[in-house]
Amino acid sequence: MAPWSALSADELQLLVSAFWSAGGSRHHLADRLGYSKSKTNALIAGLVGQGLLAETGVQPSNGGRRPESLRLNDQLGVVVAVDIGVTSLHVAVFKPDLSLLGEHAEPIDVREQGPGAVLPRVRALMQDLLQRCGASKRQVLCIGIGVPGPVNFQIGQLVNPPLMPGWEGFSLRDDLREDYAAPVFVDNDVNLMAFGELWRLQRSLQNFVVIKVGTGIGCGIVCHGEVYRGATGSAGDVGHICVDQAGPRCYCGNLGCVEAMAAGPAIVRGAVEAAQSGRSPVLAEMLRTQGQLEAVDVAAACRSGDAAASDIVQQSGRLIGQMLASVVNFFNPSHVFLGGGITRMGPLLLAAVRQSVYQRSLALSTRHLEVQYTPLGEQAGVIGAAVLAMHETLRAPGAAR
Amino acid sequence: MAPWSALSADELQLLVSAFWSAGGSRHHLADRLGYSKSKTNALIAGLVGQGLLAETGVQPSNGGRRPESLRLNDQLGVVVAVDIGVTSLHVAVFKPDLSLLGEHAEPIDVREQGPGAVLPRVRALMQDLLQRCGASKRQVLCIGIGVPGPVNFQIGQLVNPPLMPGWEGFSLRDDLREDYAAPVFVDNDVNLMAFGELWRLQRSLQNFVVIKVGTGIGCGIVCHGEVYRGATGSAGDVGHICVDQAGPRCYCGNLGCVEAMAAGPAIVRGAVEAAQSGRSPVLAEMLRTQGQLEAVDVAAACRSGDAAASDIVQQSGRLIGQMLASVVNFFNPSHVFLGGGITRMGPLLLAAVRQSVYQRSLALSTRHLEVQYTPLGEQAGVIGAAVLAMHETLRAPGAAR
Repeated sequence: MAPWSALSADELQLLVSAFWSAGGSRHHLADRLGYSKSKTNALIAGLVGQGLLAETGVQPSNGGRRPESLRLNDQLGVVVAVDIGVTSLHVAVFKPDLSLLGEHAEPIDVREQGPGAVLPRVRALMQDLLQRCGASKRQVLCIGIGVPGPVNFQIGQLVNPPLMPGWEGFSLRDDLREDYAAPVFVDNDVNLMAFGELWRLQRSLQNFVVIKVGTGIGCGIVCHGEVYRGATGSAGDVGHICVDQAGPRCYCGNLGCVEAMAAGPAIVRGAVEAAQSGRSPVLAEMLRTQGQLEAVDVAAACRSGDAAASDIVQQSGRLIGQMLASVVNFFNPSHVFLGGGITRMGPLLLAAVRQSVYQRSLALSTRHLEVQYTPLGEQAGVIGAAVLAMHETLRAPGAAR
Repeated sequence: MAPWSALSADELQLLVSAFWSAGGSRHHLADRLGYSKSKTNALIAGLVGQGLLAETGVQPSNGGRRPESLRLNDQLGVVVAVDIGVTSLHVAVFKPDLSLLGEHAEPIDVREQGPGAVLPRVRALMQDLLQRCGASKRQVLCIGIGVPGPVNFQIGQLVNPPLMPGWEGFSLRDDLREDYAAPVFVDNDVNLMAFGELWRLQRSLQNFVVIKVGTGIGCGIVCHGEVYRGATGSAGDVGHICVDQAGPRCYCGNLGCVEAMAAGPAIVRGAVEAAQSGRSPVLAEMLRTQGQLEAVDVAAACRSGDAAASDIVQQSGRLIGQMLASVVNFFNPSHVFLGGGITRMGPLLLAAVRQSVYQRSLALSTRHLEVQYTPLGEQAGVIGAAVLAMHETLRAPGAAR
């Protein structure tokens, strides 16, 4: 049971609001909730007394009495966040207000390694990290996990994950239940990035998308201020939007999917071709010394002024932008945040994406549109996992896992 | 002021719920609102006493006492709905529970006629129709208007309407204010179709889209059970999604927009070509006798077994389906409802749309997806306009127009 499971509806709503407004003042909270000053003060006093909220430091004042900033009490416990990518594993431990206590990242390959290999590693990393942070298993409030494939959120299982065939129907939640009493929440990695941005923005934006470009391409959607999962949980599957009717065949069976033409593997394929054909001396030299090429090599070659590498990056950006133009025409978001490994490709890619979006979308949809790399960067996934876990346990504190 | 402007929040919520559940029983309403039986009964008695709700007839029983069906009282007044299409004008008068009292439709052309010509005609039709229905101007509760272009919903003005250049910045609301004291609500025609479907379904579906194919192609979006207008009101502008990078140039400046290749004018252009090239004797004969061709002629030629006409219809369906595949991959709706003049093209077009969507979307998104013509048919627009108007006046009954 969560430490806040016996609260009244009003108290709980204030706690949820304090979590989402990350260090906001009591005036700010009263505003958000539409409560009177005196009601807010009484609720806060009660929550501070119960050890759920803490007042920390002072915030810049607008002239009046200096407002204290409110946070969830550190003593409540810790949040564990796991971001399982196709080629990377990232584990982090946070305080309840999402300040980072410790993290660890390492390469994996979920296409080759099934849950039988990855999960024991996840459990070991969680245990090590908790120890390093001086926290026990019993202090874990909740656990959030992101995976690079479609998830049935209700039951915490992967459904038909194209990049993770061995994980079909596998329940991460059941697996962790053996070790932890805390509730476990599993979601698609891009949905988690959307949760992360929503929290960073303190819910100030209502309608935006987050695009993750790495081994695959996916999209997290925020609609009416809430993360949107679609009618059957597969919303945001933009990697298989067609950008060229005469393009190469994707593993999904169709031609010209943006994922097959613009994601990490396509960039590497283009780089190897450019190296072998002699079009890029820089990439050829890298291939000779390293024995293989990665997307970051293309970025480096690009920075060194290599024309063929620039072409590859711009082509990828142009195709991603073309897909995004369809998304923008349909959804009219206020912001598009780009995340995942692609952010390491630098400003040339972002410029190509922007150019393509602005050219192919209607003026009315792009007049106030912002396209930028996600400010949370490489931490977007673990922060999002922690936000999801806290949000869900605060929302239904008495619910079984 | 609306007759319900002095109600308590609970009473108003019950009234809104009675409107949306179109003739539901009192048990049904209590369920929806989460009120107790006794609270619901007391509220209903009060609303019936004030002449706002009426109990009419009996509904099929499940064995117990036969439940009476509740409706908004006929005596409250009437709702006027106007659906301005690119080539048609449709005006209707409804009772507050949206039973139809009278309607009138006639051809127009908003591309050639500006507001100076169309608006006087709209006002004359409204007046005639009200008279025919035995209602006075003062009995009009609210007015809903749909237009075939982007609308700034807050101020009721068209914004950059590509098909209606003369209407830029024109306020239909201000124009009607001279004649009517009732509040006027203006929205994009496809958003109204989404409102219409949402009402027909009694809000039982949470996430779906409505595609209107006529002179242009647009999309109404329902997300989390609410009509979604986007960050700046232009969501659903799917007509300019690219379906062929090497396609013809659209008036928007880009190549291969689905609207330029698959909407009404493209079908007619294909038909004229087929007639003139001798590929279609049926269409050639129609062109000779009529002097021109319309989309309905292609449908007729198709039904008579003309191969060239079938090709045109299937090509249009295939391209619309291709655009829809992007929408389905991104949004994962439970249903796609097709409406507009295109529904007159018959089953061959729908089959081509379906085939294309199912082929190009991911299995996970289409497993439970339904693609069908809108059950409201040609009345979707005016019903939607009436739903919007009633919904908005019930939601904020004291608000100024």
